[in-house]
Amino acid sequence: MNTKEFDDRLRKAAERAESVLKSHLPAETGQQKEIFEAMNYSLMAGGKRLRPILMEETYRMCGGKQDKVIGCFMAAIEMIHTYSLVHDDLPAMDNDRYRRGRETTWYVYGDAMGILAGDGLLNYAFETALKAVAYVDREMCGNEVSDSAALSDGEKLARLRSIWRAISVLAGKAGAFGMIGGQAVDIMAEGRKQEEMTQEQLLFIHEHKTAALIQAAMMVGAILAGASEGQVTALEKCAYNIGIAFQIQDDILDVVGDSKELGKPVGSDAQNHKQTYVTLKGMEQAKTDVEELSREAIRILDGFEGEHEFLSQLILTLIHRSK
Amino acid sequence: MNTKEFDDRLRKAAERAESVLKSHLPAETGQQKEIFEAMNYSLMAGGKRLRPILMEETYRMCGGKQDKVIGCFMAAIEMIHTYSLVHDDLPAMDNDRYRRGRETTWYVYGDAMGILAGDGLLNYAFETALKAVAYVDREMCGNEVSDSAALSDGEKLARLRSIWRAISVLAGKAGAFGMIGGQAVDIMAEGRKQEEMTQEQLLFIHEHKTAALIQAAMMVGAILAGASEGQVTALEKCAYNIGIAFQIQDDILDVVGDSKELGKPVGSDAQNHKQTYVTLKGMEQAKTDVEELSREAIRILDGFEGEHEFLSQLILTLIHRSK
Repeated sequence: MNTKEFDDRLRKAAERAESVLKSHLPAETGQQKEIFEAMNYSLMAGGKRLRPILMEETYRMCGGKQDKVIGCFMAAIEMIHTYSLVHDDLPAMDNDRYRRGRETTWYVYGDAMGILAGDGLLNYAFETALKAVAYVDREMCGNEVSDSAALSDGEKLARLRSIWRAISVLAGKAGAFGMIGGQAVDIMAEGRKQEEMTQEQLLFIHEHKTAALIQAAMMVGAILAGASEGQVTALEKCAYNIGIAFQIQDDILDVVGDSKELGKPVGSDAQNHKQTYVTLKGMEQAKTDVEELSREAIRILDGFEGEHEFLSQLILTLIHRSK
Repeated sequence: MNTKEFDDRLRKAAERAESVLKSHLPAETGQQKEIFEAMNYSLMAGGKRLRPILMEETYRMCGGKQDKVIGCFMAAIEMIHTYSLVHDDLPAMDNDRYRRGRETTWYVYGDAMGILAGDGLLNYAFETALKAVAYVDREMCGNEVSDSAALSDGEKLARLRSIWRAISVLAGKAGAFGMIGGQAVDIMAEGRKQEEMTQEQLLFIHEHKTAALIQAAMMVGAILAGASEGQVTALEKCAYNIGIAFQIQDDILDVVGDSKELGKPVGSDAQNHKQTYVTLKGMEQAKTDVEELSREAIRILDGFEGEHEFLSQLILTLIHRSK
């Protein structure tokens, strides 16, 4: 796949993710319409839609074909990612007024509404994922004319169970055992002397704050497509590698990156005496580890029979970025 | 049921709710153990455990017998109620340092951890409710020896569908269409002149901020016990009446209550020029409405064959309280 083909496909994938997300936005009506506005403002703040794209591509690779079901989960994971940014930006957390050149949710709607809009998004993510159950249930057990009507009860049971498993994985990776746990350790580390951070803590933060939702994206895609236990576990490892490699590359770029290309100053970690993967393991080792993690991620994907050329290239692009 | 019998039964119900909740607390281990501590600190802050009690009593009234499944939902609804208090207490919201004579979560663990602990609790509520699916699924489809092993696929499907419906109801009543929506309207009203609040807005806030989770408690109890659609709808109305009557009584007590008995000053609403049910409709009408709403709630319960003497008395006690 050449660069133009890749760029075309990435653009189409992002457009699809964007349109799926739009189809799940809450209507801005009712007495509480201001919170719906704040939720939608947060969701429509741009962003690469990386998690829904990874989810959909993994789903296709594993043979998935059910658009409405995967769509609910693509929207749900982007809502979870978004709520985490909305809460991260709050004055009590990172106190950011701008993100991607746009005013953050709390800066537009106030602190209190920022908290509530984030809560609303997290809750709505689960409401949206649960719509997939309603959809399958109606299609299978209701009066709609469809192929599913001919399924046996055992087959219906199997389909509902896979959606359950997908919601459970999403919840687990998003919560205190996953992403929120990583944010908590990160917040606590900021209150301590950065020099004291161990490699174990740093990896914990990267694994939970970043890799967990990438794992959820790929695992949910695989589960909904009917992949085997072994395949889901393999993708969990693949996504771990992607998340960690992505973060190490982040630390590398802060030392050797081009501030113009990055759109932010380099050397800020060193200036803040921040412990990073580079300060802990050295630049050479950091570069070697990125290589090894990404090679291993691609090797896992190559174990899948389904088409995954675009997915592999996307992963390499994410990791080996210069900005 | 005399007062002593009622008090005994209430104490036992609260103890059961407390012990169910304890059995679902996350272990305080791992690098993120501080967030688990903050979550558990919030959950173990006392409280009447009203929602889990209402849920369990409704479940029993409708013939439910499955302890583990209802237990997951009893814990989940208390986690949702608790997270809403944790976020309400934040400096950016009500800025409360004490609740029930105990330091609030953010005041002990800091603002940032207060936000994350609330997020963790909301997410964990869904993780906990999802455990009910895992449990039923394992019991029905795994190798465990149980009565369920003899169920047909159709019967298994029906059981899983009822749990799914229960989670959907819980999510809907907790989110921006439910409780969070009520909090959002309340927050916005505070920013405006209180005199301008209409009866419609006041009822919206009471219905969503208070009644929604009471509705979830009773509806989930009924759904999990296998109640009919009509019964679930009747209980939704019953819980609405309970929630609204409870709030009107709150407004009445602020005018005629005994400050010693209430443990807080009376007349604060008038002092703050706060629009209440009493200022909008007058004291006599407010009292009449409480009577009518509670009579109607009991009338609905009396349509159920299952034992509900304690439940009825509990509801009357809640509404006709003097503190």
